[in-house]
Amino acid sequence: MDVIEVIRAKRDGGELTPEQIDWVIGAYTRGEIAEEQMAALAMAIFLKGMKRGEVSRWTEAMLASGERLDFSDLARPTTDKHSTGGVGDKITLPLTPTVAACGAAVPQLSGRGLGHTGGTLDKLESVPGWRASLSTQEMRRVLVDTGGVICAAGSGLAPADRKLYALRDVTGTVESIPLIAASIMSKKLAEGTGSLVLDVKVGSGAFMKDVASARELARTMVDIGNDHGVRTVALLTDMEAPLGRQVGNALEVAEAVEVLSGGGPVDVVELTVALARQMLTAAGLVPGEDGVKDPAEALRDGSALESWKNLIRAQGGDPNAPLPEAAERRVVLAPASGVVTRLDAYQVGLAAWRLGAGRARKEDAVSFGAGVTLHAKPGEKVTAGEPLFTLHADEAERFDRAVQALEGAFDIGDKEGWKARPLVIDRVS
Amino acid sequence: MDVIEVIRAKRDGGELTPEQIDWVIGAYTRGEIAEEQMAALAMAIFLKGMKRGEVSRWTEAMLASGERLDFSDLARPTTDKHSTGGVGDKITLPLTPTVAACGAAVPQLSGRGLGHTGGTLDKLESVPGWRASLSTQEMRRVLVDTGGVICAAGSGLAPADRKLYALRDVTGTVESIPLIAASIMSKKLAEGTGSLVLDVKVGSGAFMKDVASARELARTMVDIGNDHGVRTVALLTDMEAPLGRQVGNALEVAEAVEVLSGGGPVDVVELTVALARQMLTAAGLVPGEDGVKDPAEALRDGSALESWKNLIRAQGGDPNAPLPEAAERRVVLAPASGVVTRLDAYQVGLAAWRLGAGRARKEDAVSFGAGVTLHAKPGEKVTAGEPLFTLHADEAERFDRAVQALEGAFDIGDKEGWKARPLVIDRVS
Repeated sequence: MDVIEVIRAKRDGGELTPEQIDWVIGAYTRGEIAEEQMAALAMAIFLKGMKRGEVSRWTEAMLASGERLDFSDLARPTTDKHSTGGVGDKITLPLTPTVAACGAAVPQLSGRGLGHTGGTLDKLESVPGWRASLSTQEMRRVLVDTGGVICAAGSGLAPADRKLYALRDVTGTVESIPLIAASIMSKKLAEGTGSLVLDVKVGSGAFMKDVASARELARTMVDIGNDHGVRTVALLTDMEAPLGRQVGNALEVAEAVEVLSGGGPVDVVELTVALARQMLTAAGLVPGEDGVKDPAEALRDGSALESWKNLIRAQGGDPNAPLPEAAERRVVLAPASGVVTRLDAYQVGLAAWRLGAGRARKEDAVSFGAGVTLHAKPGEKVTAGEPLFTLHADEAERFDRAVQALEGAFDIGDKEGWKARPLVIDRVS
Repeated sequence: MDVIEVIRAKRDGGELTPEQIDWVIGAYTRGEIAEEQMAALAMAIFLKGMKRGEVSRWTEAMLASGERLDFSDLARPTTDKHSTGGVGDKITLPLTPTVAACGAAVPQLSGRGLGHTGGTLDKLESVPGWRASLSTQEMRRVLVDTGGVICAAGSGLAPADRKLYALRDVTGTVESIPLIAASIMSKKLAEGTGSLVLDVKVGSGAFMKDVASARELARTMVDIGNDHGVRTVALLTDMEAPLGRQVGNALEVAEAVEVLSGGGPVDVVELTVALARQMLTAAGLVPGEDGVKDPAEALRDGSALESWKNLIRAQGGDPNAPLPEAAERRVVLAPASGVVTRLDAYQVGLAAWRLGAGRARKEDAVSFGAGVTLHAKPGEKVTAGEPLFTLHADEAERFDRAVQALEGAFDIGDKEGWKARPLVIDRVS
């Protein structure tokens, strides 16, 4: 087969054949197609798109480039969640033990953060002793023992995606819905879950800024999942404002533990429960029926918290150890009295990133203690001169640029200027 | 500056700024932009296009990547021709000495053939002793002494184009009008000609298959030339059928000498004279006025032939030496009697290529004697069982695949089935 012919076919708006797709992904992974040729093809796909059948086959071919885990012999049905990433999005932390406490098994392969959104592994690594890297055998043992496991994807899963993502990152071809969908779904299908719930974020702090593109991404991924025999549903959820009151690694772990203890911010509780119900239902366990516990009950009765502790201990962590704290703090005061009518998720994420919570390059380390505490969320009252944000950083010189990021990030007005936004915007199945 | 930002700007349909273009071409030539990044940008340009100002600046930046020759101190005005390539297109051979005989100087940097169209240097190298590679100093001396020079472009001219063309060749981004125009014009502007005539071919044997795209390419190149102070005009000329009766290296040299001696096929003579008149006029020498000889007269009175001999001798060639001949011949007979109503240039070019006249890879050698002689051209009568083509090759085993290429390459019908096509379709200035 000739790669130039494949590039030309897509460039001219044609549909790639299954044979062309299989060959391109295989040959690229083996290094037989040059990076510049794949870059030209990626740009042609970016601009000309892919049809449902093409995206599905593309995902399949990336999946076939590596190993595929299999947990179908487990006593419990498996289910997982993937979020497209947001600010303060610590939902995986309370969600995984909650779903485990309700009877499903959650094999969750997570990533690290890059840019203004945090990564689940970075957050969990702030728990003293906790390890993200597990062998496939360890992963299975933790999953069987605790009903959940959150770990880093091994290099054997979807190697084609790893190579292609690195290329897209430097060639301006990241923001392509078919390529994003295939990238996410090849990894999720490789982890061997039986069902999947996608949390597709919409808004200033999200990758997708508008509902229409979020819906298209959700639809594409749901189709791929169902084409591959994994029951897949998606929720479109709001990411105009950060989730919860804490943005940063250890700060978010502490907030997750609050939620698991039956408290915590209402939005984090609401989204955790909504996603947990979707996951259980997708796994065939209807909450409230046949003795299946409802996730809200698991948060109230301590069983979710117990599950969290088991999960942390199984990966070497100490759930009772104090979490790391940043050496320096700075408080930003409210410049006026009134109601917070807007709080921009992207700008808060950027501030947390500048404080050290995120990384600019893959090889950078993150600060566990760094981040932003929000003293008022949209709809809440503030008084001029009272704390609005507390910034946490290991070095005081980081504060000025973080404060800059927060300039214009919020509006304070009167109660009429604020309208509640639904957290769950839509469901795609 | 950030290359990903530049790629994104073009990808999203934006216009690149002069600063972005200068930086991209410079950084790519210095190896600071990776091949995969340039490939993504080339595909974005392919699919989103470039505005007049962008193409002009892109050309300028490629020109600035290397040296620029300067013949403005010559006693004669300089003029050159560039053809986009066709089958049997030996026009440069009679044209350069004809224009020189009429009083202009022709500094012509030519290329070698790749694929089904031949290259001027390959043709001239079939003349025993003739050398294509000249130093800039030698080039100037030949030009001053004989009024013309046809030689290979040195590696110092537009190195950005050389690198970018090699990349486009393997990434399916060759057929982009702005990129083609910038590639041709950066080389032509670098050779230091004062005026330029473009021969843009249209038809089966040409790169541009339809008049609309040929006109767009012509318009783009004419604009670039005039933007850079080089008086530039273009002729759109027919390439449905091959030019002349000979296709192949030495075969075409022999035909060119016939034309220079006052004979030869009418289409070759017509196009040579038409292009020569355009070149002289562009150089400010109006044929028939102020003692400027008309090109048709130069062909008749032997002055063009004399000029050819001087030109060949000045580059080490012997104009009187016998030309190489292929070891083997095969005659293809006309299968029916009637008038040739169609003769496909592409298929004839392919046959000549398979006989050894062209090369598949840059590093291949060509056969000087190989090629196709056409015994009948469109509009001419043939008799069943009489010769239609003579094939020339160094190895007899090449004939079968060449004959295959010619299957369906021609139609024989009655006189009413044939309509004369104008050779010069249009003029763009």
